[in-house]
Amino acid sequence: MKQFINTKERLVTESIDGLLKVSAGRLARLDGYPHIKVVTRADWDKSKVALVSGGGSGHEPAHAGFVGQGMLTAAVCGEVFASPSVDAVLAGILAVTGSAGCLLIVKNYTGDRLNFGLAAERARAFGLKVSMVIVDDDIALPDLPQARGVAGTLFVHKIAGALADQGADLEAVTQAAERVISGVSSIGMSLDTCSVPGSEKEDRIAPGNAELGLGIHGEAGVEQVPFSGAREAMEMVVDRLAPHLGAGPHVALLNNLGSATPLEMSVLAGELFNSRVGDKINWMVGPAPLMTSLDMHGFSVSVMPVSAADEAALKAPVAPHAWPGCSPVSAVEVLPLPDGLSPIQPIPSRDDATAAFLEDVCRALIAAEKDLNELDAKSGDGDTGSTLATAARALIDARDRLPLADLTQLFRAIGLELSQAMGGSSGVLLAIFFAAAGDALASGHNTVEGLKAGLDRVEQVGGAHPGDRTMIDALLPALEALPNGTAAAAKAAREGADATARMTRARAGRASYLPEESLAGYNDPGAEAVARLFEHIAG
Amino acid sequence: MKQFINTKERLVTESIDGLLKVSAGRLARLDGYPHIKVVTRADWDKSKVALVSGGGSGHEPAHAGFVGQGMLTAAVCGEVFASPSVDAVLAGILAVTGSAGCLLIVKNYTGDRLNFGLAAERARAFGLKVSMVIVDDDIALPDLPQARGVAGTLFVHKIAGALADQGADLEAVTQAAERVISGVSSIGMSLDTCSVPGSEKEDRIAPGNAELGLGIHGEAGVEQVPFSGAREAMEMVVDRLAPHLGAGPHVALLNNLGSATPLEMSVLAGELFNSRVGDKINWMVGPAPLMTSLDMHGFSVSVMPVSAADEAALKAPVAPHAWPGCSPVSAVEVLPLPDGLSPIQPIPSRDDATAAFLEDVCRALIAAEKDLNELDAKSGDGDTGSTLATAARALIDARDRLPLADLTQLFRAIGLELSQAMGGSSGVLLAIFFAAAGDALASGHNTVEGLKAGLDRVEQVGGAHPGDRTMIDALLPALEALPNGTAAAAKAAREGADATARMTRARAGRASYLPEESLAGYNDPGAEAVARLFEHIAG
Repeated sequence: MKQFINTKERLVTESIDGLLKVSAGRLARLDGYPHIKVVTRADWDKSKVALVSGGGSGHEPAHAGFVGQGMLTAAVCGEVFASPSVDAVLAGILAVTGSAGCLLIVKNYTGDRLNFGLAAERARAFGLKVSMVIVDDDIALPDLPQARGVAGTLFVHKIAGALADQGADLEAVTQAAERVISGVSSIGMSLDTCSVPGSEKEDRIAPGNAELGLGIHGEAGVEQVPFSGAREAMEMVVDRLAPHLGAGPHVALLNNLGSATPLEMSVLAGELFNSRVGDKINWMVGPAPLMTSLDMHGFSVSVMPVSAADEAALKAPVAPHAWPGCSPVSAVEVLPLPDGLSPIQPIPSRDDATAAFLEDVCRALIAAEKDLNELDAKSGDGDTGSTLATAARALIDARDRLPLADLTQLFRAIGLELSQAMGGSSGVLLAIFFAAAGDALASGHNTVEGLKAGLDRVEQVGGAHPGDRTMIDALLPALEALPNGTAAAAKAAREGADATARMTRARAGRASYLPEESLAGYNDPGAEAVARLFEHIAG
Repeated sequence: MKQFINTKERLVTESIDGLLKVSAGRLARLDGYPHIKVVTRADWDKSKVALVSGGGSGHEPAHAGFVGQGMLTAAVCGEVFASPSVDAVLAGILAVTGSAGCLLIVKNYTGDRLNFGLAAERARAFGLKVSMVIVDDDIALPDLPQARGVAGTLFVHKIAGALADQGADLEAVTQAAERVISGVSSIGMSLDTCSVPGSEKEDRIAPGNAELGLGIHGEAGVEQVPFSGAREAMEMVVDRLAPHLGAGPHVALLNNLGSATPLEMSVLAGELFNSRVGDKINWMVGPAPLMTSLDMHGFSVSVMPVSAADEAALKAPVAPHAWPGCSPVSAVEVLPLPDGLSPIQPIPSRDDATAAFLEDVCRALIAAEKDLNELDAKSGDGDTGSTLATAARALIDARDRLPLADLTQLFRAIGLELSQAMGGSSGVLLAIFFAAAGDALASGHNTVEGLKAGLDRVEQVGGAHPGDRTMIDALLPALEALPNGTAAAAKAAREGADATARMTRARAGRASYLPEESLAGYNDPGAEAVARLFEHIAG
C-alpha cells in the first residue's frame, strides 16, 4: 500500500508536528517523543476542569484536532490503532490538571480503559482530582455489554467541553458527560476496509456488499449486507438507530470514516433527512470527518436527544476548526429562476442592402465548404467547412426575423443565432464575437472598433492570441486594415491566413495537441475562411 | 465501483440539496433542476460586487462549499467533471448581480471559458457589469500556454471575496483577482487515480510509482515518478515550485485531492516546512480538502507571494466553514514533561508480621500455579496460574523495599510492583485495585472499605461486574463477609468461585468470546485463585 508517509515508526510523531506547525501557536506538545505523544492547549492555565481524551491514532481529526478552547485540553495519542501507554496518559493528566481536576474521556476498548484507568490512579496518588467516563455509543451488537466507543464520543467532547469552559466543576462536567453517553447511539457502514500502514489491505467485503455495524479499527462489521445505493444504505442504518430515538428533538452527527467523497456525504445527509427518522433530527453536526478509520470508505451516524442546555453547549463556539459546528436543519430554500434566461428576441426590421450583403457573405462561406473541410482534415477532423456552412445557412434562414436596420441589435442577434445553430467551441466563440461587437456598438464605438472589441473578447475567452494559428491571425490584420478599405483588409487577411501555414507550433485549440510537422504547409482553416470572406467582400 | 450515491444522474442535485439542508439557512439554490444547478448566498442583497465561480462537480468543497460571506456569492455547478451550460452560468449571474457588477472566476478549461464567457456576454447585453478572470495556476507543463486552473483558485476566491465584502468596486476586485492569478503556482501529486461515478477506475499508476503534475479531472499526470515516501514526494513537488518563489513572504495552500488521510496530510505539511522552500512560507492554508478530484489519493501545493493587503484579505473571517483559515506558520512548541512520571519510590519500613503474612499469601499463590493453569486452559490460554505466581514471586523479592509499616503506602507500593511485574490486563487491573485501595485508606477508610473501593474501581475500569464470571465473583462476597472474620470470608469466596462454574455466559474478558458450553462446569481461574487465597488465610 502506497501512502504519503516516511516510516510507520515516525508516522504519528511527524503527523503531530505537522499539525502543530499550522496551529497558529494554539497547540503544544510534551517533550516525550517517541513514547509519549501528548498534544495540549498552548494557552491553558489550569484554572478550569481539564478534559483529556485520546487513544490509538488513525482517527484524525480525533483526538489532537479537537484540542482547543471549548473542547479538549489534551489528547494522548497512541500509535495507529494502539492504546497509548499508562505513562503517556499520566503525562497528559499531570501536564494539564490543576486544582479544578480533570475528566478523562475514554472510548470503550480494553487497552484504553486499562491504561487511562491506571494513569488516573497514579494521578490521584498525587492528590489530583481525576474522574473518568467510558464512551460506549456503538449499537452494532445490541447484546454485547461492552459496546465500543465510536464517533458519538464527539458529543461528549463538545458538551463536556462547553461546560468546563464555562467554569463548571468536575462533578458537573462528569455528570454531563455520563448523561451524554447514556443518550448517544451510533452505527457505521462501509464499502471497503482501511489501509493500515505497514499491513496489506484486507479484502473481505464481497462485490455488491457493504459492511454494517463496523468499528473504527478495521475490524469486520457485524454483518455484510447487500449494497444497492445511498438510500438503501441509509435506511439500513436508520433501521438500527430508530429504536433509540425517543420523542423530542435530536441531534445527528454524520461522520465520514475516511475516503467517502463530499458528494457522497452530502447525498447521505439528504437521505438521512428523507428517512423515517428525518423529522426527529433538528440539528446536524457534519457531514465531516470527525472520528475516522484511516481511509475507510464509509460513514457513521450518531444520534442523541437534545435538551435546551445541550443545544447551547453544542452550539457554543470552539477554537478547533475540525469541529464543523452544529447547524439547525432547515428546508432547502429554492429561489425562482431570474428573468432573462430566454433570450430577448430582437424586433425584426428591414434593410435591403444589409440583407443582400449578409446573404452574399453567407453564400460565399457555403461555397467554400469543401475546400475548408479538406484543409481542416490536415490538422483536425475535417469539419470546419461544414460547421461554417451550417451556420451560414442558418443565418440565411433567419434573415426575416433579424433586426437588419439596427447594426447593434443585428450583431447581438447574429451572436444569438450562431450560439444556437453551431455546436462546439467555434459556435460559442463566434457568438461571443458578435455579442461583444454589438455591445461595443451600443457604447458608441464604430463598426471596426466594435468588431475589434469582439475579437478582444474572443482572445480573452478562447485564450488564443496572434501567432497561435487560429482565425485570429487573419481577422486581426483584416480589421486593422479595414479603415483603408475592403481591398486592403482582404490583402491583410490573405497574408495573415497564409502566414499560418508557417506556424508549426499551434498554441491553442485542437491543433495544439498535434505534432508540429503535421501542420507545416497548410493554412489554418479558420484563418483561410476569414481570408476568403474578405476577398469575396472586396470583390 | 461502489459509492454512496443513488444514480449518477441525480448525484449532483441530491448532493447540493444535502448541503443546503445543513447550511443553517445560509445557502439557497435556483429553481432550475436538473439543468441549472446554482447555489447562492441566501442573505445576499446585491449591494456589493458579486463573485460567481463554478465548473464541473467532483471538486467539493469547491465550489458550492465556498459560497458565503467573504467568499463566493454563487457557485454554478456542472455534472461531475463537466462544465455547466451557458444558461446555468447566466442564471447564476442574473440571480446575484446588482449595480455593483459581478466577477466571474473561471478555471482555465475550454468548456468553462466558453460557457462562462458567453454567459458574460449575454449578461452584459442586459446592461450588467460583468468581468471575468481565468485562473491558470498549474505549473505541471511549463511550456503550455494554456495552464490549467487548480487549487490556487481558492486564493482568488478568498482575496477577491474579502475585497468585495469590504465594498471594493468591480475594477478593484477584478484587478486584485488578476494580480493573485499572476502570482500563484500549483502542482499536484497522486498515488492513485479517482473513481468517476459510472466509470471503471483507471489503473494506470504502476506499483512503486506516483504521478506528478496531474489535473483535477482524473487526467494523467505529466510524468510518472518513483515513489519512495512522503519526504521524497514533497521534494519533487518543491523542485517544481521553487523557481516560482521569489523573495519575501509566501502563503502555501496544501490541498487534499480526496482520500489522503489527515495523518498523511500532516506528515506532508511537515515535509513542506522541512524542505528548502520551508523558510519562505509564512502562512499556511490547510492541509484540507479544498479543490478535490473525487477520491484521488493525492495532494497539491499552491504558493503565492503575500503583500500586507493580501495577508489581511487571507485572514479575514468568512462564513463558509470549508475555508480552513490562513494560519501563521509557527515553531512547534515543546513543553517539558511534567514531574511525577517516574513513580515515587516509597520509603521502606519494617513490620515483621505484615512481611510474614505477605510472604505466606504469596507462597500460597505460587503453590496453586499448576492447578490454576489447568483451570485456565479450559477457557483461555492456561497461564493464569503462572501470571499470578510470577507476581507473587516479584512481591516476595520486593519485600525489603516495601513500606510494610504503613498500609496505605503498602497498598500503593504493591500496585506499583504489580503493574511493573505482571504483563497484560490482569496486571493493570490488580495495580488499579491496590492503588485505589491505598487511596481510600489515605482518605480515612478502613482496610475492608479500602479493598472494596479498589474493587469498585476495577469494575469501572475493567467493565466486569458480579455474574460476569471473573475474580469479582469471589472477591466481592469475600470482602462483604470479611467483617465477620476470615473464615466467613473464605466460605463466601469459595461459594462465589464455585458459582462461576454455572456462569456459562461470560460477559467480560477473553472468555466472553468462547461458546457457552465450553465454560460449563469449570470455575473461573481468577475467582478460584481468590477463593484459595482466602481459604489459605482462614487456615
